[in-house]
Amino acid sequence: MSIKVVFHIDELSKWSLLLKNVQNLTKVVDVKNSLIEILANSEAVGFYAGSALNSDRTLMQDLSRTGVLFVACNNALKGMGIQREVLPQFVEVVPVGVLELIEKQSQGYAYIKP
Amino acid sequence: MSIKVVFHIDELSKWSLLLKNVQNLTKVVDVKNSLIEILANSEAVGFYAGSALNSDRTLMQDLSRTGVLFVACNNALKGMGIQREVLPQFVEVVPVGVLELIEKQSQGYAYIKP
Amino acid sequence: MSIKVVFHIDELSKWSLLLKNVQNLTKVVDVKNSLIEILANSEAVGFYAGSALNSDRTLMQDLSRTGVLFVACNNALKGMGIQREVLPQFVEVVPVGVLELIEKQSQGYAYIKP
Repeated sequence: MSIKVVFHIDELSKWSLLLKNVQNLTKVVDVKNSLIEILANSEAVGFYAGSALNSDRTLMQDLSRTGVLFVACNNALKGMGIQREVLPQFVEVVPVGVLELIEKQSQGYAYIKP
Repeated sequence: MSIKVVFHIDELSKWSLLLKNVQNLTKVVDVKNSLIEILANSEAVGFYAGSALNSDRTLMQDLSRTGVLFVACNNALKGMGIQREVLPQFVEVVPVGVLELIEKQSQGYAYIKP
Repeated sequence: MSIKVVFHIDELSKWSLLLKNVQNLTKVVDVKNSLIEILANSEAVGFYAGSALNSDRTLMQDLSRTGVLFVACNNALKGMGIQREVLPQFVEVVPVGVLELIEKQSQGYAYIKP
């Protein structure tokens, strides 16, 4: 099954739950033909810069390799004083996170907020 | 009015709020011709197994009788060590909760996360 | 760019985050030709009645002037004992907040829960 979904995260404390949700999903769908995106804004972008358990960071990297897209809101990065250079290479940056959430939904993506 | 909506809950502490939201909704729509589903994953499935105020459990049963569908994520049940047998009979179990949320939205259901 | 989106808030503590999200959005879209709505239910309606930082209230008023729509759930107002008369004039009241969220999504609005 191929699906389109954007997961929204804006709390650092929700990353473990979110990654587990996404991991469970990738086990039952055709990831290569699906569009699975994780959009982080607000304090949640801090995860990309290192505020995370090692086990969660490993899971993020594994999911990225399977085709899950990780995205950060640039406004949030600026607000947290995080430079793009410190982010993992696979993290994409969009100017305004909520606009990304709107555009994806208008393209038929489901929205999930763990 | 007939509507299609899936409510998502993944925190035990949100059940009272969610049930009240759904109760208010059922008072103003044609429930019999609507599709109203509550999808619980993560720790929130514990509610089905008994981690709840009695008043909330009564409200859940009342809503179920009017046609509201209560669903549990099987991954979450396994993660919490909850056997299907202890759940109320009207609770349906799906293999992966987030996939259920995606499929319902692709079928035109609105998504609400109280 | 013109967009359609409804932001959902049911926790008082999320207003600052939500208003900042919306402010960032209004800087990059054509607000006059967009439909941007904020739907508050549960305890979050208390914000309209004064439970807020002054800076947040000023931001709310500024966003309202640009065309952002602020809406309150009447069930929530009643539950909190808040009279309509104490709300800012630009706040609209709907009978059931979750029904508003469902109707907007059925009209093609994106849903975002900060």
